[in-house]
Amino acid sequence: MSVLAVGSIAFDSVKTPFGSAREVLGGSAVYFSLAASYFTSVNLVGVIGEDFQESHLQVLRERAIDLQGLETAPGKTFRWSGVYSYDMNERETLETHLNVFADFRPKIPESYRDCRYLFLGNIDPDLQWDILQQVRKPELISLDTMNYWIETKRDSLLRALSAAHLLTLNDGEARQLSEEVNLVKAARKILDLGPRILIIKRGEYGALMFTDSTVFSAPGYPLEVVYDPTGAGDSFAGGLCGYLANLDNVCDSTLRQAIIFGSTMASFCVEAFSVQRLRNLTYDEILERYRQFRRLSHFDDVP
Amino acid sequence: MSVLAVGSIAFDSVKTPFGSAREVLGGSAVYFSLAASYFTSVNLVGVIGEDFQESHLQVLRERAIDLQGLETAPGKTFRWSGVYSYDMNERETLETHLNVFADFRPKIPESYRDCRYLFLGNIDPDLQWDILQQVRKPELISLDTMNYWIETKRDSLLRALSAAHLLTLNDGEARQLSEEVNLVKAARKILDLGPRILIIKRGEYGALMFTDSTVFSAPGYPLEVVYDPTGAGDSFAGGLCGYLANLDNVCDSTLRQAIIFGSTMASFCVEAFSVQRLRNLTYDEILERYRQFRRLSHFDDVP
Repeated sequence: MSVLAVGSIAFDSVKTPFGSAREVLGGSAVYFSLAASYFTSVNLVGVIGEDFQESHLQVLRERAIDLQGLETAPGKTFRWSGVYSYDMNERETLETHLNVFADFRPKIPESYRDCRYLFLGNIDPDLQWDILQQVRKPELISLDTMNYWIETKRDSLLRALSAAHLLTLNDGEARQLSEEVNLVKAARKILDLGPRILIIKRGEYGALMFTDSTVFSAPGYPLEVVYDPTGAGDSFAGGLCGYLANLDNVCDSTLRQAIIFGSTMASFCVEAFSVQRLRNLTYDEILERYRQFRRLSHFDDVP
Repeated sequence: MSVLAVGSIAFDSVKTPFGSAREVLGGSAVYFSLAASYFTSVNLVGVIGEDFQESHLQVLRERAIDLQGLETAPGKTFRWSGVYSYDMNERETLETHLNVFADFRPKIPESYRDCRYLFLGNIDPDLQWDILQQVRKPELISLDTMNYWIETKRDSLLRALSAAHLLTLNDGEARQLSEEVNLVKAARKILDLGPRILIIKRGEYGALMFTDSTVFSAPGYPLEVVYDPTGAGDSFAGGLCGYLANLDNVCDSTLRQAIIFGSTMASFCVEAFSVQRLRNLTYDEILERYRQFRRLSHFDDVP
């Protein structure tokens, strides 16, 4: 099965302790699509400005991402700039210029409306809801969001959440959304809001999955150098949803594997600026890192 | 094999968001010994004041801890008081009264000097070194320390470390000791200082083990209520060393299991104030939680 991704397409300017990059390709839909493209075919819906160049499109086309849903609007492409602290766990947004993204009203092409796997990137929850009205009966709706929407559009977010199956958040956002400090209690409250699967992303500490019946803890991959954490969360979602869509089977066992594939793609993503590392991977490299995650977390049972 | 534990014996006064406890039994040697006692026999070396009561000794005796190395000195037992922040990851020390601990010069009884498994709790690294001169040829010397000693007695600590096999630290301490932000690089630097096994404790995020040839990531156990984190690190070390001493076999596979047993004991420790939860566990409860750790972190290989 293919996966449909809706989200931002951006030019990011990023500064980290290891260097900087100016106006490089980014955005949730871009990171997601590239990561997912190693597992299944990807349909992308997003908006670009007139400054988006053929070379940028080429990055997506090289990974065979379907761009039928890509809209070009008059004006400039969305721009974001930020700087990361030395420990890479905190980032400060310097500037956000929505540009063409400000008036983005996603239109799902007719041929995408029967999609069984849908990823709603971190955009205005009213737009997420609007997209949900355009698709027919997805098997798995994954939704991402952020502190800004929790603060400013809680009701809209709760409406979108009521229709979603899988939610990805970081720990701070999970605490903020649930108004609960303890993560286990926070998870239970969030599962009551609609999604049947909650995945809490914890950066270098890995990820936690909560469902009604199980908890899964995925390790973080201990990397010697993290060049640029931008896009890690969307690459995680891309590996996760791409793997599930390809199998077309969502159960406890495949979700756990999918989270490790998501973690694998995130670990590659942060090894270079922008989407560089996600352009030329081989499936063997991905499998090898998946197996490293196994070695990293394996321990024997006791007799 | 038995394990020899040297460390503090204290009365702790603790305040957490869930309650408080005044002058309750604590200290690194106490938490360690109780946790280790579920796996092997424990010999304890420490000092108490004249205010230490029969009921406190009883807690240790009930777990068959050998108290031949327990010294009673004129004056009061070591006292510590602290308060935990709402997220339980930070604590502030309010008061430390060393009392009899100020002049503590550990004397290892002759019958303990052939110990094969030794735990040096978080005490002055000069005392740790002094203890190392008294024992003959331990198979595994585990050492714990803290930011205070890294700051104020770095040279003494480095001397003790040069003779230790296994070091436990938290992430902040690992970064401080190595003067390196990235944990993988920090670990490599620390392994060059002497220990062949480094375990980085990350509280609710679990633990990481580094050796020359392997990395192991142990999950944190997602607990719904953490009443009191005091002693979690020493309980972790107790489960870890107790399990290894009982097997008398230190290899990659047993170290990984030992870390999970350590995590198991730490997860019990924080469920109640003081040592309450470590007094009356059954080995079946411990095994059951070990298996929960397996379910928590298991994922299948890919075909």
